[in-house]
Amino acid sequence: MQVVETITEMKRLRRQLPEPFGFVPTMGYLHKGHISLVRYARKENASVVASIFVNPTQFGPSEDFEDYPRDTKRDLAMLEEAKTDVVFIPPATEMYPERFSSWVEVGKLTERLEGNARPTHFRGVTTICTKLFNIVEPTKAYFGQKDAQQALVIKKMVADLNMNLEIVMCPTVREPDGLAMSSRHIYLSKEQRQAAVSLYEAIQLAEELWSEGERDAEHLRQVVTSHIQQQPLAEIEYVSVADTETLEELKTATSSGLLSLVVRFGKTRLLDNTILK
Amino acid sequence: MQVVETITEMKRLRRQLPEPFGFVPTMGYLHKGHISLVRYARKENASVVASIFVNPTQFGPSEDFEDYPRDTKRDLAMLEEAKTDVVFIPPATEMYPERFSSWVEVGKLTERLEGNARPTHFRGVTTICTKLFNIVEPTKAYFGQKDAQQALVIKKMVADLNMNLEIVMCPTVREPDGLAMSSRHIYLSKEQRQAAVSLYEAIQLAEELWSEGERDAEHLRQVVTSHIQQQPLAEIEYVSVADTETLEELKTATSSGLLSLVVRFGKTRLLDNTILK
Repeated sequence: MQVVETITEMKRLRRQLPEPFGFVPTMGYLHKGHISLVRYARKENASVVASIFVNPTQFGPSEDFEDYPRDTKRDLAMLEEAKTDVVFIPPATEMYPERFSSWVEVGKLTERLEGNARPTHFRGVTTICTKLFNIVEPTKAYFGQKDAQQALVIKKMVADLNMNLEIVMCPTVREPDGLAMSSRHIYLSKEQRQAAVSLYEAIQLAEELWSEGERDAEHLRQVVTSHIQQQPLAEIEYVSVADTETLEELKTATSSGLLSLVVRFGKTRLLDNTILK
Repeated sequence: MQVVETITEMKRLRRQLPEPFGFVPTMGYLHKGHISLVRYARKENASVVASIFVNPTQFGPSEDFEDYPRDTKRDLAMLEEAKTDVVFIPPATEMYPERFSSWVEVGKLTERLEGNARPTHFRGVTTICTKLFNIVEPTKAYFGQKDAQQALVIKKMVADLNMNLEIVMCPTVREPDGLAMSSRHIYLSKEQRQAAVSLYEAIQLAEELWSEGERDAEHLRQVVTSHIQQQPLAEIEYVSVADTETLEELKTATSSGLLSLVVRFGKTRLLDNTILK
């Protein structure tokens, strides 16, 4: 496994990699969710590149950029074990030199849900992804369904701007009790961590109702909301049942819907979702 | 010469073109300026692709998109004569399908000069260039110095977003009397056309002063302004002496400066510039 820190070296290296090649962009502090993306990439490609970069432009001014957990040594060991060929791990000055001032923005989709809660978040995500895609030039890039809106936004950007890669959305990986894996679990107290299982329980309730034929989106939202509200430590930020393409809130989910939710435990925002279909 | 209308076909074709290959994006209604770009591209590359696309998103609501002159048959004949290999000429629906909503924006540089006069212009330019660069994937793309700010903005975008091509700025091509070539000359009356030569005369006055050692930017602006003001048909929009990288207005031009100006004749805006160095 080669570890590369500069854009020039990464661009040089990728020309020598056997194609097709898969790319897994990460912010590090890896968990089994990230590693499952590497395994999907490994299965479908001749080469696999991963990146580790805590992207400052996708954090809001009052968010946890400085505190975001980092453990590069452990990350590299995990990537090596998963048979990654190249890890790109640039310093911030390499990605955002002085006077940097170009941005990629996706409209509409990014105004809802996470974009509504974090106004400049997706602009940071789409800009860094454009840069990484141009530097790495992968055949396919892999994103987790846990951040479903992110995957949708990136897919939209790739389609609108005619980028030459395919975006693959892979299933959410969960802890044994069902909690969706996240690097931010490190922030949770023991009590918060226990209460957090209610997110997945609520999602399962909605899935059950869906399989029984329930299509009233408001009822699905209510069932999820009331279940989570039983946990005194949980503060619901939103529960949404939206169109899987436009992310517009649905009244009635006919053929499919994205049920997504954000719940805060203290300062920690936890996301989860399921695609009802 | 092959003429291609769809993105899929263009992406397929470019894989068969011998590299390196040069790209000349145009809005059609070609003149000798465009053809000189094709000749530069021809000299430096194994293949040459040109595009013809009147890009709606770079026109403001009250601008001349509908009236912009078009003559595809003549354009194709000129490109063929200049030994273009492929012409990409997509319909608007191919480039901007329904629900299109992704944009590439360069900050700062685009707030000045043309960006100040035409607020959404450069967003349209950088977005269409990103799309075309992704579709055509050229080694180099060629732009005329007549639109110097445009070339600078695109260079900045390519650097910031790590795009895999080189931007080449080629010298302005002029009519025998010195007027910089432009597709918009078709809008000028005979009297306006004659008066328009004052732009180049004024630029030459400034160049002369510069070569004599004049570095006071305000004096250079004044000399240019007073010369053009002698033409009663000319309405000056701006005369600028700015830093060649940041486009900030200069007080004193030490080592170099971009002298640029926009003058209206009736509704027609004419641009010209020179790099003082």
